[in-house]
Amino acid sequence: MTDSTLRIVVALGGNALCEPGTEGNIAQQFARTRATAVHLADLVDSGHRLLITHGNGPQVGNILRRVEIASREVYPIDLGLCVADTQSSMGYMICQCLVNEFRKRGANRNAFTIVTRVVVDAQDPAFAHPTKPIGPYLSQEEAERHSREDGWHLVPVPGRGMRRVVPSPEPRTIEEMDLLKKLYDQGELLVACGGGGIPVIDRPGWGYEGVEAVIDKDLSAAMLAVGIEADLLAILTEVPQVYVDFNKPTQRALDRLTVSEARRLLAEDQFPPGSMGPKIQAGINFLEQSANPGAQALITSCLAVNGALAGKTGTWLVRDET
Amino acid sequence: MTDSTLRIVVALGGNALCEPGTEGNIAQQFARTRATAVHLADLVDSGHRLLITHGNGPQVGNILRRVEIASREVYPIDLGLCVADTQSSMGYMICQCLVNEFRKRGANRNAFTIVTRVVVDAQDPAFAHPTKPIGPYLSQEEAERHSREDGWHLVPVPGRGMRRVVPSPEPRTIEEMDLLKKLYDQGELLVACGGGGIPVIDRPGWGYEGVEAVIDKDLSAAMLAVGIEADLLAILTEVPQVYVDFNKPTQRALDRLTVSEARRLLAEDQFPPGSMGPKIQAGINFLEQSANPGAQALITSCLAVNGALAGKTGTWLVRDET
Repeated sequence: MTDSTLRIVVALGGNALCEPGTEGNIAQQFARTRATAVHLADLVDSGHRLLITHGNGPQVGNILRRVEIASREVYPIDLGLCVADTQSSMGYMICQCLVNEFRKRGANRNAFTIVTRVVVDAQDPAFAHPTKPIGPYLSQEEAERHSREDGWHLVPVPGRGMRRVVPSPEPRTIEEMDLLKKLYDQGELLVACGGGGIPVIDRPGWGYEGVEAVIDKDLSAAMLAVGIEADLLAILTEVPQVYVDFNKPTQRALDRLTVSEARRLLAEDQFPPGSMGPKIQAGINFLEQSANPGAQALITSCLAVNGALAGKTGTWLVRDET
Repeated sequence: MTDSTLRIVVALGGNALCEPGTEGNIAQQFARTRATAVHLADLVDSGHRLLITHGNGPQVGNILRRVEIASREVYPIDLGLCVADTQSSMGYMICQCLVNEFRKRGANRNAFTIVTRVVVDAQDPAFAHPTKPIGPYLSQEEAERHSREDGWHLVPVPGRGMRRVVPSPEPRTIEEMDLLKKLYDQGELLVACGGGGIPVIDRPGWGYEGVEAVIDKDLSAAMLAVGIEADLLAILTEVPQVYVDFNKPTQRALDRLTVSEARRLLAEDQFPPGSMGPKIQAGINFLEQSANPGAQALITSCLAVNGALAGKTGTWLVRDET
């Protein structure tokens, strides 16, 4: 909540790039990304300096649907390569929509997408407990085939069929961090680490190798924010503020939250594991690991982000007062 | 043919990343890319400084096969986004295999992939004459549906069915060129402009917009080579040298070719339009447009490239003596 120039990592949720309730085809993705670019360009026009990252849930979902439908005729794609695909295609969309928006405003500014690999620990407990649902719903028969032939873990989803679950290990190192920091410090506007980054392990005697996993994009965004010594990690989602007692009579919006309060609410299961939980955790990680004494995290919507920076809304996560 | 450090743009053909005669699945692509990385690392160990670009024919072909098979259930992907997908996934493979190869040699070196957009002219005559075959072979019925619903141009391929053809306009501007030049000059090892680049036009009153087209990757490689003021444009293909009178009793390999000789042989239709023709043209473009007085182009195979630089093989394209 300041008027000065901030170093901001912006983490765009899937909905900022693909309108919920639509098929999410390419024209619709571009339309949604153009709308999002207006809010991002407003941040730039306010003097802030952005490093942009993004989710890729609907897009990876559609790649995997095609892979599944074509699976008897065309080889499948590793999950890491699905993430890679979306880094480039979504990064291209974001950069192109931003450049066009800048031009409309009379500014000649470019934006670049850097393909990003993220190392995870091969011993991460997530590998023993796959929890992240991914890809299409499958019949019992298809599920059994993939379990047998591909070693997939599958879980039943009531009324929908079976669904693959994959590990969601914690990000450890962003392999492109030095380059990203250098370019960011040189004033470049970058899109990086889309979909949480391409997950790789460092296998002794072999080298880096892709793994069948998906890294939470908000946790990777927190690492990016630590890496560039950001003032602000802005996680953009569907709602302008975080709620406690969500959907209960006692529901209330949170304006400001210290790390200790956030930890307590996380422990009380106030935030669902697959949605608000990782965003709160990402904010905590950033504030705990950042060397920047002024670091803050903000959870709000894309529509509300400029208002939030003007102090009007958003849920602000701050360090405990000492 | 020199022992000094050269600034080299290396253009990898599809076969350097996907072994002909194989299905080209992900494990096979990685295996082939690992083998290619050995030759590239040899170039680096010889002191040369690389900027790497690559084709994507087999990979885009397989994306389009999946899109076609799933086309009644999942939305299709624009061609520009197919190119984008392959820039990231293939760039990731190339970078990871290079980093692993460097580590095997005791060197701690990174490599990065930059998503690359290339502007083409909306008035390029190629748009009126689509010639580049792309995607799967189709039945008459499927072809008619795509012609009617999607406006595709299709041509009959004897014995195989119908096939889509798309325009192959000339590259005009690489949107990331300044960034690539800056990073290259700072010593970074980069993969860029894969698949010829994501083709976009600059539409008045709108801005940049993707187009259904494919840019020849060798022509884009020539632009990259001009852009970084390369000493050498090395186009790696299946054969160690270029031949005239190919498959005739008078067949002979070319060791050295001036721009004038190359133009004359092109005019004599010595080089097929879809294969050696654009490579020769790319070499000519580079030598004509480059400000580097020592500029040369080399056409050889990935296996032979280190030998070619030692003066043992390859077809060298040089400026006319003045």
